[in-house]
Amino acid sequence: MISVGVVGFGYWGPNLARNFSSAVGARLGGICDLREVHLQRAQRQFPGVRVTSDYQELLRDPAIQVMAIATPVSTHFPLAMAALESGKHVWLEKPLCETSEQAVRLIEAAQRRNLVLHVDHTFVYTGAVRKLHELVTGGVLGKLQYYDSTRINLGLFQHDVDVIWDLAVHDFAILDYLLDQRPVAISANGMSHVSGSPENLAYITLFYAGDMIAHINVNWLAPVKIRTILLGGDKKMIVFNDLHPMEKIKIYDKGIELVDDPGRLHQMRIGYRTGDMCSPNIDSGEALQIEAAHFLDCVRHGRRSMTDGEVGLRVVHWLEAATASMKQQGAPVPLTIGV
Amino acid sequence: MISVGVVGFGYWGPNLARNFSSAVGARLGGICDLREVHLQRAQRQFPGVRVTSDYQELLRDPAIQVMAIATPVSTHFPLAMAALESGKHVWLEKPLCETSEQAVRLIEAAQRRNLVLHVDHTFVYTGAVRKLHELVTGGVLGKLQYYDSTRINLGLFQHDVDVIWDLAVHDFAILDYLLDQRPVAISANGMSHVSGSPENLAYITLFYAGDMIAHINVNWLAPVKIRTILLGGDKKMIVFNDLHPMEKIKIYDKGIELVDDPGRLHQMRIGYRTGDMCSPNIDSGEALQIEAAHFLDCVRHGRRSMTDGEVGLRVVHWLEAATASMKQQGAPVPLTIGV
Amino acid sequence: MISVGVVGFGYWGPNLARNFSSAVGARLGGICDLREVHLQRAQRQFPGVRVTSDYQELLRDPAIQVMAIATPVSTHFPLAMAALESGKHVWLEKPLCETSEQAVRLIEAAQRRNLVLHVDHTFVYTGAVRKLHELVTGGVLGKLQYYDSTRINLGLFQHDVDVIWDLAVHDFAILDYLLDQRPVAISANGMSHVSGSPENLAYITLFYAGDMIAHINVNWLAPVKIRTILLGGDKKMIVFNDLHPMEKIKIYDKGIELVDDPGRLHQMRIGYRTGDMCSPNIDSGEALQIEAAHFLDCVRHGRRSMTDGEVGLRVVHWLEAATASMKQQGAPVPLTIGV
Amino acid sequence: MISVGVVGFGYWGPNLARNFSSAVGARLGGICDLREVHLQRAQRQFPGVRVTSDYQELLRDPAIQVMAIATPVSTHFPLAMAALESGKHVWLEKPLCETSEQAVRLIEAAQRRNLVLHVDHTFVYTGAVRKLHELVTGGVLGKLQYYDSTRINLGLFQHDVDVIWDLAVHDFAILDYLLDQRPVAISANGMSHVSGSPENLAYITLFYAGDMIAHINVNWLAPVKIRTILLGGDKKMIVFNDLHPMEKIKIYDKGIELVDDPGRLHQMRIGYRTGDMCSPNIDSGEALQIEAAHFLDCVRHGRRSMTDGEVGLRVVHWLEAATASMKQQGAPVPLTIGV
Repeated sequence: MISVGVVGFGYWGPNLARNFSSAVGARLGGICDLREVHLQRAQRQFPGVRVTSDYQELLRDPAIQVMAIATPVSTHFPLAMAALESGKHVWLEKPLCETSEQAVRLIEAAQRRNLVLHVDHTFVYTGAVRKLHELVTGGVLGKLQYYDSTRINLGLFQHDVDVIWDLAVHDFAILDYLLDQRPVAISANGMSHVSGSPENLAYITLFYAGDMIAHINVNWLAPVKIRTILLGGDKKMIVFNDLHPMEKIKIYDKGIELVDDPGRLHQMRIGYRTGDMCSPNIDSGEALQIEAAHFLDCVRHGRRSMTDGEVGLRVVHWLEAATASMKQQGAPVPLTIGV
Repeated sequence: MISVGVVGFGYWGPNLARNFSSAVGARLGGICDLREVHLQRAQRQFPGVRVTSDYQELLRDPAIQVMAIATPVSTHFPLAMAALESGKHVWLEKPLCETSEQAVRLIEAAQRRNLVLHVDHTFVYTGAVRKLHELVTGGVLGKLQYYDSTRINLGLFQHDVDVIWDLAVHDFAILDYLLDQRPVAISANGMSHVSGSPENLAYITLFYAGDMIAHINVNWLAPVKIRTILLGGDKKMIVFNDLHPMEKIKIYDKGIELVDDPGRLHQMRIGYRTGDMCSPNIDSGEALQIEAAHFLDCVRHGRRSMTDGEVGLRVVHWLEAATASMKQQGAPVPLTIGV
Repeated sequence: MISVGVVGFGYWGPNLARNFSSAVGARLGGICDLREVHLQRAQRQFPGVRVTSDYQELLRDPAIQVMAIATPVSTHFPLAMAALESGKHVWLEKPLCETSEQAVRLIEAAQRRNLVLHVDHTFVYTGAVRKLHELVTGGVLGKLQYYDSTRINLGLFQHDVDVIWDLAVHDFAILDYLLDQRPVAISANGMSHVSGSPENLAYITLFYAGDMIAHINVNWLAPVKIRTILLGGDKKMIVFNDLHPMEKIKIYDKGIELVDDPGRLHQMRIGYRTGDMCSPNIDSGEALQIEAAHFLDCVRHGRRSMTDGEVGLRVVHWLEAATASMKQQGAPVPLTIGV
Repeated sequence: MISVGVVGFGYWGPNLARNFSSAVGARLGGICDLREVHLQRAQRQFPGVRVTSDYQELLRDPAIQVMAIATPVSTHFPLAMAALESGKHVWLEKPLCETSEQAVRLIEAAQRRNLVLHVDHTFVYTGAVRKLHELVTGGVLGKLQYYDSTRINLGLFQHDVDVIWDLAVHDFAILDYLLDQRPVAISANGMSHVSGSPENLAYITLFYAGDMIAHINVNWLAPVKIRTILLGGDKKMIVFNDLHPMEKIKIYDKGIELVDDPGRLHQMRIGYRTGDMCSPNIDSGEALQIEAAHFLDCVRHGRRSMTDGEVGLRVVHWLEAATASMKQQGAPVPLTIGV
């Protein structure tokens, strides 16, 4: 039985608590939050579980093996480092931490003690993204050409991070999971429409070796909610609409074909191919449940998580680069880590 | 009766010929094309009209007052300059020409002879974009914050121009029409997926003074056709879906509101406002018919066209800047003309 | 403090328990179900509340003033009658009961003891249907001409009732609420595709005096889920799509106009009018919470519920007529009660 | 070269003229219409073709082998009978004629002279409906269970026929083509909302032997245009949305499965199956071009048309029955012809 302490019981923490309390082979060892109202809610929902506003109390408890941290990103590093130094495995809400340097130090601390360091890139564990992974790695799309994501809606302005760190982080995690190559440079633009607040919309481009390119459009100030990713390959193309109740993934047998054009010497004509569209059935199980089971398995057997510190580091590195480029109106920022 | 010579009878020319032949106060004075098959088609459709492969023949005809040119962009400058020098008014397919320098020379040539120089930015004459203009200039949206366009589909790869010059040109024309300010810098990224061909997808950002920003996503290699523009204002927000049969424009009474947050000293809390949505009825008349009437009116009374050479120059200047930025992976290119 | 006993803790009962436990001025007095697994779930969710498989135990408890019954419809009558005879107010899941005769007896029993008899026509308490009511009674639509509902999906075949009693009951409740007139006859068709099971699809038409007509298409065997109602008036027309996340109600300023046609003696020409479409913002509060507050208010002050036994009787009467017509392939069945 | 006379040059006639003028092996032998404005338009579009308001003139021309008639339905019988009696093959706009009796007489007249009698059920020749036929007859859907069509929009009120004869006729033609069985009874309801005009909305149910059922919802007074057919089979189910630009047909691998339920003696449990959805690519060629080629082929080789007089008779018979049932508020009308 792995005992898990949940730190932060605001928006996401209750989901962690619910999943760890019902996961096979795990139990809730305690819930920590600084706000009294959150602790009261925690107590109501998990009557037998200790709740506390003192993080040290959980750290000192030798029965607790895992700290699952869902607090603001600015607190990730100190909380996670303290947990690792107390010999506890760590599950961190996305993004892993605030800087690449912090990420490197967390990775080293975890390695030194053979502890699992896991970042909660939930999308990677959804049925839809796992199906995308299966299609991409199975060669169904052919050679990947582009990834084009629109992730916009009205609301949930963050005070501490810009829209890239809040929303584009999901696409960075998905890209890291789907592709077997890493971006070599990033260009980003953005704008803040609230004085003194971080950017609330941004457009990010990731360049890869060859002709692969990724683009991400994120916006907290859009009148409609859109969660759509286009994935272009030279064999097939995909539209992934995460808001569609049934047909989340559509695979289009469409593309171009180069044919000799006898009328034009030394030139190829571009032809268009339009075939069937298919929408595969998607596993609708809760991603967090699958992710929790995977994480507990890693803790149990000393394995690396599929979204471990290295993955978290790469994503933070890209987030840093995107924000840096955005400050310079899109001037490209080369990437070095993990290429 | 204004006599119009139509030059180029490929994809767009037949539409010009049809509209000028039926416009009040105008008649077709001749049709010119280099390809025999196009001339045969022209003859079938317009039995009484002279067809010729010799542009000079039309130029020499003193009865022809207007040259309406719908040929590849690389031929715009010489054809239009020859027409102006022959004392004829000019209607040019978009974009106006290949370079700002060419545009300046065409503008000067037209001014010298008091001739109308018109660029066919058709979108500006559609019922939907005219309605957008009415809403923007009428203050319905409040202060504009962003313009976000997605203009993608499979097909019609061009050989001579990249996707920016083919598709983003529409958004540049709409932006020039809708806004009373001009962009100060452009950042663009793009990629070609066909060896030796120009870029087939691109992402362009236009920066304006203040916090207005525009973004355009154009793609010839997308599995689905999308023609959607989001227009954000601090009072209302619009979604313009040009493919919707009835509800092309939706006006959302949505936005954020800054309210004092007594719990957080010196800080404003962001609140969200969600009201009704309205979709105004749109004039569904053919844009080209309205545009032709406007152009003929300018010719008749010596007025400037709403989309004259100056407008065409600005758009070409932005196209040049976007392509220049795209070659440098998004490094911003400052704009000087027309600011 | 009104004490509520919840009877039946299967699909709907937990929603009743949750709402009555959190409603102002109410508390859960007990939960009853025949299945052990349901009782265990009830105990986990409501730790301090008595759970029992013995209905009599709740009936005998003088502290319990209300029985909220969410059991199969075949049990509604005996359970509700016993509750009324024990002096308790009754909340019954829809439909009220199995026959008009049962309904009449329940109404009489409630009246004798001045008890509230309430049928849970939840739709009537949703923000969207309340908005429809406001639009209809406010005259926005003009004279109502038709109601056309499609309520289809795959699943939840019932064993004890046909698809009319399961799904069309919602439309009957909405019609009773929206219109100030009652149907005078019903014609219905249907089919069962599972041997020995009740009809799994049906098409029902309700005739009203004048030219108002209502049509309902219900189906348990459809590949897609649709919940759409068209409401035609001679001034405006509405599409109510209950599955749309934001734009549930769209009001179309469309219709026909009769104009004198000078070309055709003694004849009217039909013209078409197309104006704006508007989608009003809808209160997204939980219907059941509003309904529970209304019901408790009726109990407290001895008022009649908006969906009382009389309403429930009318709906059961129409259900009986629809099923009777369906057995005769659509032969119309005249209605007598409540006209 | 088959010479075709086109009779009626209003809404549909120009399409017939265009297709027969360009069809291989055919030419336009003349165009007849009673209205001068129609004849002028015909002359402009087909400069070399004789136009006349005198039907007899075409009848007397021995060169004309075919009369293609696109006039109001009340004129179909006399015009077609005269053509057959003059030894000409006949193409008739849908529906074939006004009564079953007329249809029988036309069939006999054609048979006597070995002439082709063809009714223009255009839908049957569309790529989408031919694909449906392929799927149904190929057994992909399994045993058919229901057909459910919604065919509504605002406009085109007819003066001479009700909405069943105008719109449901399309579904009757499709049903006759898709199914290998014929309906045994029809129940229909409808309403007129314009005094003195025929019914402008109607709901029709067709009963077949076994558990197959068809339902059709037609409406001239709807705020939105819908053209959707659901086709349920015990293996797969289809949604055919004729207005979707690309994905007209979606095949759902969904359904129910009967499984032994050990918990309930002698009872089957109903399980639900949800698999992939596929949308086959559809031939987008013009239906009328395919239909004209088929018809000319029948004329040339003395073959029966796929939509011959017998098909037209069945559809007229069902239209008569539907209207008869509608006059009796849905009382079922048994069918005899063609069962």
